[in-house]
Amino acid sequence: MLKLPIYDDVRKASGRIRPFVIKTPVLTCTSINKIVKAKLFFKCENFQKVGAFKFRGATNAVLLLSDDEAVRGVATHSSGNHGAALALAARNRGIKAYVVMPEKSPRVKKEAVAGYGAEIIFCKPTLAARESTLAEVIKDKGAAFIHPYNNYNVIAGQGTAALELLEEVENLDLVLAPVGGGGLLSGTALAVSGLSPNTKVIGCEPKGADDAYRSLKEGKIMPSVSPKTIADGLLTSLGERTFAIISKQVDLIVTVGDDIIIKAMRLIWERMKIIVEPSAAVPLAVILDGKIDIEGKRIGIILSGGNVDFDSLPWIG
Amino acid sequence: MLKLPIYDDVRKASGRIRPFVIKTPVLTCTSINKIVKAKLFFKCENFQKVGAFKFRGATNAVLLLSDDEAVRGVATHSSGNHGAALALAARNRGIKAYVVMPEKSPRVKKEAVAGYGAEIIFCKPTLAARESTLAEVIKDKGAAFIHPYNNYNVIAGQGTAALELLEEVENLDLVLAPVGGGGLLSGTALAVSGLSPNTKVIGCEPKGADDAYRSLKEGKIMPSVSPKTIADGLLTSLGERTFAIISKQVDLIVTVGDDIIIKAMRLIWERMKIIVEPSAAVPLAVILDGKIDIEGKRIGIILSGGNVDFDSLPWIG
Repeated sequence: MLKLPIYDDVRKASGRIRPFVIKTPVLTCTSINKIVKAKLFFKCENFQKVGAFKFRGATNAVLLLSDDEAVRGVATHSSGNHGAALALAARNRGIKAYVVMPEKSPRVKKEAVAGYGAEIIFCKPTLAARESTLAEVIKDKGAAFIHPYNNYNVIAGQGTAALELLEEVENLDLVLAPVGGGGLLSGTALAVSGLSPNTKVIGCEPKGADDAYRSLKEGKIMPSVSPKTIADGLLTSLGERTFAIISKQVDLIVTVGDDIIIKAMRLIWERMKIIVEPSAAVPLAVILDGKIDIEGKRIGIILSGGNVDFDSLPWIG
Repeated sequence: MLKLPIYDDVRKASGRIRPFVIKTPVLTCTSINKIVKAKLFFKCENFQKVGAFKFRGATNAVLLLSDDEAVRGVATHSSGNHGAALALAARNRGIKAYVVMPEKSPRVKKEAVAGYGAEIIFCKPTLAARESTLAEVIKDKGAAFIHPYNNYNVIAGQGTAALELLEEVENLDLVLAPVGGGGLLSGTALAVSGLSPNTKVIGCEPKGADDAYRSLKEGKIMPSVSPKTIADGLLTSLGERTFAIISKQVDLIVTVGDDIIIKAMRLIWERMKIIVEPSAAVPLAVILDGKIDIEGKRIGIILSGGNVDFDSLPWIG
């Protein structure tokens, strides 16, 4: 069994990726604080390169490849943000990236991956098709597979967002992060465990893709079957590695419905004047839903990304 | 004839309003710089209180009222941003604000004005109705009329955005600001004249509301008749005061079509992950349109505001 990563891996990742990533700002919003009666500190990974925290993990994983591995390139399957992130991380190291993605992915995401110089290999929109196409690419090219979340180097990289947040804002009572495959939540929990062990970590998940909630309840991985949510970055299920970390380090998973996710997303757009994608709005949705006790508390929120296809917005029919 | 305001009025306004306004960030965007082959510095007044630069001018004007004037309150007619700005500026001084606005104004703008505690008086959507309704309010209440732009204290306040930009970013070749009634452009020109006299100031105007362009060409005020543009903050025509300043201090007015304004707005949303309203995108639209020589130059852009009604976006039919 692999040894779980620890806080120190996140700290080292932070130093390693620093020349490549943006140290994103932490924003506050007086009018949202008034509405929720708490003090929210938003770590703005929507301003990260490629528009999402995913660039942190991909960069850490690419930098940790040996020269022999790196020369054959990297490969992944991804609905978008991880694909774009890996493409740019590979380009920064001067190596090739192969990205397997479904033909029907949003236009902005396809353009981003291609724009960063990756070779896109399209597949049918099923998990089986993704995996078999990826297996072929890895066999043909000898490329290193960088999993979007079930990879300790990726997880340690994702944790650097929370690390920066905790270094900038003291005495947080809670840190909230969205959970899909669990890479961001796992990394966040590792950062908190090292820097601020009394801060609680809460995973925020759409009701329509509540595998992490069910998995923690059952004590084993309970994958999503036909997940359906507006938060299209959170459709995937936990992997073994993220399940192991989250089971041990995360205090609570809370689920919330798409109607409130959309409301939270719109509130951030209207009041903060910044673009976040639906997945990034899930933690604020959990707060608006009123199911956790937050009154008067200081709460860190990871705004995970800002890649939106503006041709169709969730509140325009 | 009234003495024109000078740079010193902007400098004093900046000190006066400092406790109340946000010192907004100046953002840059590598990918937009690549597209336009120039270095753009965006002064983000979309992050200003009430979501627009208008709060600067309104605050300066309200703070300059004598106690005798202030006690009777302030009044204005406004399609939105100035109304909201005056409402909050008045509340900050503890005085009443009366805002005359057309019933059909966007929902977010009406809610903002009411939310800041102003009394809204609705009128028909014609200039005549606005003016007669305002005249009644002023007569009844004895309130001081704070014009949205044809007011020297308002103009000096608006100039503080450019003043902050010039203090933060040196050696700008150009500063671009949108022009509607001309308050922002006038104030910007005053700030530039004092802090960076070699920097050129360019007013950016929608083709469908090109009164400033025509006025400067003819050497007299040529009001817009039935202006029509997506940039709904720029429908008004220059006033005597703004015309006087702009004629003297602004190097050029350039017009641009709505199709490019929409493209520029979307580009800012997609690449910078920030919300700007159509009016704020007009300067970038002028750049994208390729009619001014900008290659390799350092260009300041005032992003005037971020108040968008998300129920209908210009690119969604």
